[in-house]
Amino acid sequence: MNSLSPDGSRVSIALIHHPVYDRNRRVVATAITNLDLHDLARLARTFGIFHFYVVTPVEEQRVLAERIRAHWQDGWGGSYNPDRREALELLRVVPGIEAVLADLEAGRKDPLRLVVTGAKERPDAISHASLRSRIQAGEEEFLLLFGTGWGLVDELFDRADYILEPVKAAGEYNHLSVRGAAAIILDRLLGQR
Amino acid sequence: MNSLSPDGSRVSIALIHHPVYDRNRRVVATAITNLDLHDLARLARTFGIFHFYVVTPVEEQRVLAERIRAHWQDGWGGSYNPDRREALELLRVVPGIEAVLADLEAGRKDPLRLVVTGAKERPDAISHASLRSRIQAGEEEFLLLFGTGWGLVDELFDRADYILEPVKAAGEYNHLSVRGAAAIILDRLLGQR
Repeated sequence: MNSLSPDGSRVSIALIHHPVYDRNRRVVATAITNLDLHDLARLARTFGIFHFYVVTPVEEQRVLAERIRAHWQDGWGGSYNPDRREALELLRVVPGIEAVLADLEAGRKDPLRLVVTGAKERPDAISHASLRSRIQAGEEEFLLLFGTGWGLVDELFDRADYILEPVKAAGEYNHLSVRGAAAIILDRLLGQR
Repeated sequence: MNSLSPDGSRVSIALIHHPVYDRNRRVVATAITNLDLHDLARLARTFGIFHFYVVTPVEEQRVLAERIRAHWQDGWGGSYNPDRREALELLRVVPGIEAVLADLEAGRKDPLRLVVTGAKERPDAISHASLRSRIQAGEEEFLLLFGTGWGLVDELFDRADYILEPVKAAGEYNHLSVRGAAAIILDRLLGQR
């Protein structure tokens, strides 16, 4: 543990497959992507995150996610590639955001804050630096939601304790993959400086 | 263009499928991954990168990469999803690192520096902050190599002008995907602060 980095164990992340928008702003459940699970699990492990939740109300999709987890954790994959096993240990597959909150509420000591992420500029967003300071202060716990598809529904932004500012770069282009955005955000919040 | 960000157009990136190590430290050519192409192209577009090279000596694999590019650029995909078209415009598919260097040498104004990346700590590595300053100084151009498989071969580290320090976090776990590592590295070098 490096003293310059905030404590990642105060932070959990959730990859949301529902409720999110599709390209026509309809609320849908997106399909699980194998690489998302591996990439986000590795990120979570790298930054010392508490739990990584995969959220989908579609039972077949949860079975699929559990199968991926089990393959790398218990099966042949775990001995072939222990790095993947170690990462996927953090994965919890749940049907909805309420289940995530209930799971985290059960074990928390400090107030739990819901943080939503997205590509769009919004008023009252918190900067990465400010959220980093709040994590470092050690008085709150945090759940970061990452949306698949065309992003988290507005109701989640209304409900959030913090809306995280989008990842900005030099130009106007703002279409990172959820994997890429999550990597940058977790590094900004928890990486060594 | 934000004055706080270094100029990404001085930087190109190359995703290397050969020569890289496999898990047993044999030198191999890895297979192209569809999502790598999309994720790195989006990152390159986001950070204003000059060119994104995909390097493989295997002709069938280059044909595959070109087909992905063409689908999103010229075909049905380009009108369905203009964001992907815009990103994949930066993609150049080449057989080897020499071809990348020749392509960049042809158009360069300032000295071109070869920068290699990897997960292992090495002596004489340059920090992300120092490389960011060098980019910002505006006197050199840079080619960053990202390895697939189990990483770039040692010969490339011997040949590099700069060896970039690995992405560090709180713990010892150091097994990010190449997509995740590239996202974090480009943000550290070129992102808004």
